[in-house]
Amino acid sequence: MLMDQSREELKEQYAGLKARYEELKAQGLKLDISRGKPSKEQLELSMDLFTVLTPSSDMISEDGVDTRNYGCLTGILEAKKLLADLLEAKPENIIVFGGSSLNIMYDMVSKAYTHGIMGETPWGKLPSVKFLCPVPGYDRHFSVTQAFGIEMINVPMNDAGPDMDLVERLVSEDESVKGIWCVPKYSNPGGTVYSDETVRRFAALKPAAKDFRIFWDNAYNVHHLDVDRPREILNILEETEKAGNPNLVYEFGSFSKITFPGSSVSAIACSEANVKDITSVMQNQIIGHNKITQLQHARYFKDKAGILDHMRKHAAILKPKFDIVEETLEKNLGGLGIGSWSHPEGGYFVSFNTLPGCAKEVVSLMKEAGVTMTGAGATYPYKKDPEDSNIRIAPSYATVEELKKAIEIFTLVVRLVSTEKLLEN
Amino acid sequence: MLMDQSREELKEQYAGLKARYEELKAQGLKLDISRGKPSKEQLELSMDLFTVLTPSSDMISEDGVDTRNYGCLTGILEAKKLLADLLEAKPENIIVFGGSSLNIMYDMVSKAYTHGIMGETPWGKLPSVKFLCPVPGYDRHFSVTQAFGIEMINVPMNDAGPDMDLVERLVSEDESVKGIWCVPKYSNPGGTVYSDETVRRFAALKPAAKDFRIFWDNAYNVHHLDVDRPREILNILEETEKAGNPNLVYEFGSFSKITFPGSSVSAIACSEANVKDITSVMQNQIIGHNKITQLQHARYFKDKAGILDHMRKHAAILKPKFDIVEETLEKNLGGLGIGSWSHPEGGYFVSFNTLPGCAKEVVSLMKEAGVTMTGAGATYPYKKDPEDSNIRIAPSYATVEELKKAIEIFTLVVRLVSTEKLLEN
Repeated sequence: MLMDQSREELKEQYAGLKARYEELKAQGLKLDISRGKPSKEQLELSMDLFTVLTPSSDMISEDGVDTRNYGCLTGILEAKKLLADLLEAKPENIIVFGGSSLNIMYDMVSKAYTHGIMGETPWGKLPSVKFLCPVPGYDRHFSVTQAFGIEMINVPMNDAGPDMDLVERLVSEDESVKGIWCVPKYSNPGGTVYSDETVRRFAALKPAAKDFRIFWDNAYNVHHLDVDRPREILNILEETEKAGNPNLVYEFGSFSKITFPGSSVSAIACSEANVKDITSVMQNQIIGHNKITQLQHARYFKDKAGILDHMRKHAAILKPKFDIVEETLEKNLGGLGIGSWSHPEGGYFVSFNTLPGCAKEVVSLMKEAGVTMTGAGATYPYKKDPEDSNIRIAPSYATVEELKKAIEIFTLVVRLVSTEKLLEN
Repeated sequence: MLMDQSREELKEQYAGLKARYEELKAQGLKLDISRGKPSKEQLELSMDLFTVLTPSSDMISEDGVDTRNYGCLTGILEAKKLLADLLEAKPENIIVFGGSSLNIMYDMVSKAYTHGIMGETPWGKLPSVKFLCPVPGYDRHFSVTQAFGIEMINVPMNDAGPDMDLVERLVSEDESVKGIWCVPKYSNPGGTVYSDETVRRFAALKPAAKDFRIFWDNAYNVHHLDVDRPREILNILEETEKAGNPNLVYEFGSFSKITFPGSSVSAIACSEANVKDITSVMQNQIIGHNKITQLQHARYFKDKAGILDHMRKHAAILKPKFDIVEETLEKNLGGLGIGSWSHPEGGYFVSFNTLPGCAKEVVSLMKEAGVTMTGAGATYPYKKDPEDSNIRIAPSYATVEELKKAIEIFTLVVRLVSTEKLLEN
């Protein structure tokens, strides 16, 4: 343990680390492990999508829609089936949107703000609206709620999901609590998989607000690092129905990290009453989303098996990168007591916790050394990590060589900043 | 003139018309001239879009963006250039969106409602917000403003555009007037082309509200029925800049009626200050719109000349249909004094005015005879045509044979209902 060492030992180590850091800085590196973006190699996996539609293709959907023309507000049948496969829902519970599930989430908050949910007062007319935010979490979720002036309340994550005692209490006590952001499988950034008990407790929530919704961002449902040993979670739509709360949840999913981010198809899955409520507003907003991309994806993947075959190829590229992160962290920081990290079985991130008060300095020194990371604090609402400890590592985009180098530097910087911190005390 | 005939003559004619109508009704027809949808033949024109991208395509944009990955909020450079060509703007004035310009318009109203425009009070916090609606106009425009509870005020159209005396007065007097819906070329449904004076008066408006915007839906800018004799209008972005009002206008356009409705690319064109204001909210909404469809369209069309070549093929299909409408109306109703209609040189509609109080009955009898038309009143806010006179005819979707039959029936029904009306008096 670093903290067991003497001041003299620490000083000596600090000098060595600092010297190596300055050498690295002088190399003028330019590396990026900041965002959960697929690599070029992963994008190549989906180029055969461009063989699906040709000038002589039949463009009529299974339900008889000419996908080239106006219409079909909620999506063509085969796209609903495909998204239902992805999200383990029924086609009648699906509304297919464009390429961005984030945009659906924004629209759902915006709709609640301007029109209200199922006849309840629009959130924009209320003195206070609050969202629960399991932390650490996804920065773009927090940006959506912050954009509407919604007060965000931190809820700590544990190994089984959010602290459900706290969630139950806040949701049942306070009518101004209108939603919670959840990434239930391979969570961003912690890699957490919600336990069956957690999902059941979510499904059984008794919110004070009738228009409370769980924003269930099932972004990584099939994004296993080992497709033969997938982690599974309980089906939230089934569980809420069983619990007599069928309208409690908006589930989101997308093909962004399956094919082409931003240019694929995404969907919301929810009760038929929610579908009706959403489309009542949506019909003024758009005539129909891109049905050609829907047709292309549906014909390419066909079903769940087609999706999983494809995810196996992603995993073959991603798994070695996650292994590099794990191995390098363990090799250079294991047993030092200056950092802990997640061991995800899927998703796009490794979550790293420094000693309290070190995260900002680590990310800042990384930047100076030419390695861009997600900003420290980004995993918390208002970018305020109360411990200044959490750092999100995104191994996917960099090449193996770049990633190795970046993580080596990261461990050096963590040791440097931690040593400095210990010397300060 | 029908109204000059004696009661006896009218009665006799009515009996004959009624008998023919009942015969037609018995045929159980199923025709649709309700919506401005391209025909199947027109959709076939764009099937070569599917040759543009192949598994071996270079997917990098002119500005170095991998179109397959996240990012690029405002669109790739070549798509901006293409949309700039379509809308006669500069690429830096363009934000490229997804397949629906209606969705952009909704988003702009929604953004003004939730976040306000350029720091002004969000419309949702104001006691009253009003929009001017040139009539007859486009029903989906009115649905957007109605969805937000915005009060809509009718402004009559004349041959040169909206009644600008009225527009200038209302806009300068009333701070709660925040916008106006315009289709400046080949307007929906009247086919009106705004005169230079009209455009200049729009550009020179002195609104009481700082956040007043002209919603300039340039949906039919290149949709000429004779591409060699196009109608041109003054450039609103240039005119507003000349007039010292650079931020006054949001211009909208789309490839929906050029390639595949709902699955193409659309854009807003506006001042750089507006671009900045819009993206400040948009950055929380989405990471980027479908860039693959952007790349596909940009590479297929290349430039304005490419667009016009393609529009020539559309015109070759559309012009004969518009001719059928014109000829049949003239042949069967010319000189009778029971209807007047527009003679569009582009766009998707013919606007027909019956004698006052006849439109609903005409559309209803058409429906009974198996011909679906746009609902009477749809061309007015709140679906209330004060004269019950305007009917929108959409010739594009039906085949030539279907259209001939539908318009023949239409003229019969107009004569029937008009005769009945005259007999009532």
